[in-house]
Amino acid sequence: MSRLVMKFGGTSVADIDRIRNVARHVKREVDAGHEVAVVVSAMAGKTNELVGWCREASPLHDAREYDAVVASGEQVTAGLLAIVLQGMGVTARSWQGWQLPILTSNAHGSARILDINGDEIVKRFKDRQEVAVIAGFQGIHKDTGRLTTLGRGGSDTSAVAIAAAIRADRCDIYTDVDGVYTTDPRVVPKAHRLDKVAFEEMLELASLGAKVLQVRSVELGMVHKVKIFVRSSFEKPEDIDPHGNPPGTLICDEEDIVEQQVVTGIAFSKDEAQISIRNVQDKPGVAAAIFGPLAEANVNVDMIVQNVSADGKKTDLTFTVPAADYQRSMDVIDKAKSEIGFDRVDGATDVAKVSVIGIGMRSHAGVASQAFQALAERNINIRAITTSEIKFSVLIDAAYTELAVRTLHSLYGLDKA
Amino acid sequence: MSRLVMKFGGTSVADIDRIRNVARHVKREVDAGHEVAVVVSAMAGKTNELVGWCREASPLHDAREYDAVVASGEQVTAGLLAIVLQGMGVTARSWQGWQLPILTSNAHGSARILDINGDEIVKRFKDRQEVAVIAGFQGIHKDTGRLTTLGRGGSDTSAVAIAAAIRADRCDIYTDVDGVYTTDPRVVPKAHRLDKVAFEEMLELASLGAKVLQVRSVELGMVHKVKIFVRSSFEKPEDIDPHGNPPGTLICDEEDIVEQQVVTGIAFSKDEAQISIRNVQDKPGVAAAIFGPLAEANVNVDMIVQNVSADGKKTDLTFTVPAADYQRSMDVIDKAKSEIGFDRVDGATDVAKVSVIGIGMRSHAGVASQAFQALAERNINIRAITTSEIKFSVLIDAAYTELAVRTLHSLYGLDKA
Repeated sequence: MSRLVMKFGGTSVADIDRIRNVARHVKREVDAGHEVAVVVSAMAGKTNELVGWCREASPLHDAREYDAVVASGEQVTAGLLAIVLQGMGVTARSWQGWQLPILTSNAHGSARILDINGDEIVKRFKDRQEVAVIAGFQGIHKDTGRLTTLGRGGSDTSAVAIAAAIRADRCDIYTDVDGVYTTDPRVVPKAHRLDKVAFEEMLELASLGAKVLQVRSVELGMVHKVKIFVRSSFEKPEDIDPHGNPPGTLICDEEDIVEQQVVTGIAFSKDEAQISIRNVQDKPGVAAAIFGPLAEANVNVDMIVQNVSADGKKTDLTFTVPAADYQRSMDVIDKAKSEIGFDRVDGATDVAKVSVIGIGMRSHAGVASQAFQALAERNINIRAITTSEIKFSVLIDAAYTELAVRTLHSLYGLDKA
Repeated sequence: MSRLVMKFGGTSVADIDRIRNVARHVKREVDAGHEVAVVVSAMAGKTNELVGWCREASPLHDAREYDAVVASGEQVTAGLLAIVLQGMGVTARSWQGWQLPILTSNAHGSARILDINGDEIVKRFKDRQEVAVIAGFQGIHKDTGRLTTLGRGGSDTSAVAIAAAIRADRCDIYTDVDGVYTTDPRVVPKAHRLDKVAFEEMLELASLGAKVLQVRSVELGMVHKVKIFVRSSFEKPEDIDPHGNPPGTLICDEEDIVEQQVVTGIAFSKDEAQISIRNVQDKPGVAAAIFGPLAEANVNVDMIVQNVSADGKKTDLTFTVPAADYQRSMDVIDKAKSEIGFDRVDGATDVAKVSVIGIGMRSHAGVASQAFQALAERNINIRAITTSEIKFSVLIDAAYTELAVRTLHSLYGLDKA
């Protein structure tokens, strides 16, 4: 017998038929003797409808009222799933964030979970074999008693936090894909599903656009050592292998992965813009003078490359921003020109970032240089490079994205046999 | 300065434009210096959508889960109205039933309000001139902490109960009509709006189909002496008379009505069916043998007429049920035939009930006999008669309903000048 958290997103609960499908997944685990807590999102489209009303009501809306409005979506799904489960003979009840309670910070709209009381859920596992159906995405502020929400994708975080609170053996995230792939299979048909990914790798993959899981849920899993299993809500009984293992990707501690690959996956992002500031004064405080105003303007700066200046006086500084923020960023830099002190600023919006991720890189030299070599052979020009312990990224012309990703995918032996 | 509760129903908050209109009504009262609590229903259609999902999820759904699902509709409206009010510069916050809290019984789906804590609302009136926007229709069970709902039209009851809790000077119910009329103006164009109606009269009018207010809200108003003012949400500034009085009907204590009319209004209902049981044994327990099984079958029996038997042995017994329950009622009676003991049972579904209501009847003799005379002159046959202290009802052929109502409306001097 295991204790499981099962999380289902908006498309998995889009209507009553799909909720019935979710209930069948839950019943399967209950019938297998497991203790189950389910975390659900709002029915697909509902959150957008609610957010749309808030915007229509006032462009500058009170985040506390926004939270009260949008949290209703998950409340509805939780109640409906409880009803369907009961109809199938499974003992179940719904829980809203304030009922457990799930206590959060007061950062309305993007609150952080502070504490979850899982005692009552565990008690009911023991006393009544009752399935807990919990509204994801929401909580209650510990002091004011007002509803809070965790931000887009927050139900993933709810699920992992609840798994930690009830000391679950695993947190199953049911999505519309059957796991995490070495790269986007639409770009590289030879991409294959990873059986296991380390938390650190998943953090890099997710924030680079793999879009399977909310980044914070992975952070939380890492801290609390909650095994997260990404699997498909369209999974059928015949998909399970003879050993009883369903298809999916386990996100776990590095030490739980016996055969660590050097490179785990290739991520890429095309919605990038490059900004290069030429002949900046190479003196203390200049980075702050550039990135301070950008942060104030809410621009999310990603890669930053600054080389050591040849003469110790002037240098070039390159960074990337989301393509949508390009013009705004250029305006911000222009306004701050006298404060920063530079000759001119160049930019390009037709650029892409390609990243290679793998924990094995830490103990293998020359991983990046292989990539530079391979890209050069394909005549792909590298505009900028950044590296970290378990990944490196290159900025290239967007037109070469697919070619670069396929080249690197083959290079590191990730192509499906 | 007064303290007001303002209640708006589903059609008044059907979309953001209408919610903006509601906010203008609220702002008008706030600008006039009043302390205001607003009670809102779900946006028109939303409750039906939520109820539909519950039914689709399972025909026999857990009422506690049903309540968690449907209560979300009012939560959304409350948040949206608070946002719109803030956008107009009015200090406001939303309250859900569990936040105040509004404590109820555990009769999920039709819970009764047990207690409301209005202290925080009143404190905020004083400290911040803050408008309280309260989700109607919902509460929380005092022991289990689960959401409850009050049944259809429950927001009226929420509003009156909150008015009692905060000792409001008046509870304004905004509807799509501008008050309570002497009868349905679609049937009698000469019907006119009543300025004042006594609680007792309104109870008879409402339960007989005036459909302006939930019956329980009137009962509650009567017990707690909350003045209820029915007015239109489409009311415009130019509708207010030179003395500052808006159009509408005040439902109040009998003693607040100086010039009491003998007859206040004529109510009618066409969805009636008549069942007559012939030659029933006239002995103790026979009424229980008939109405027990009907109550168990959830049939709402209305008029009951039993005459004194001529021979002391057998009598006829007539009663009415909603037309929709006619066939089911006949089946129930048929099944219990041996237990009841009767010769045969007749029925008719093409009947209507017309009722004449007025507190003044108590001190005026001959009010009913005038009606019988007038109906006879029109050749309208009376099938059955029941009377109470402040009303009498006649059962007639449905085809004569309009004629009967118009005749009685004129008879008692209710026609508009």
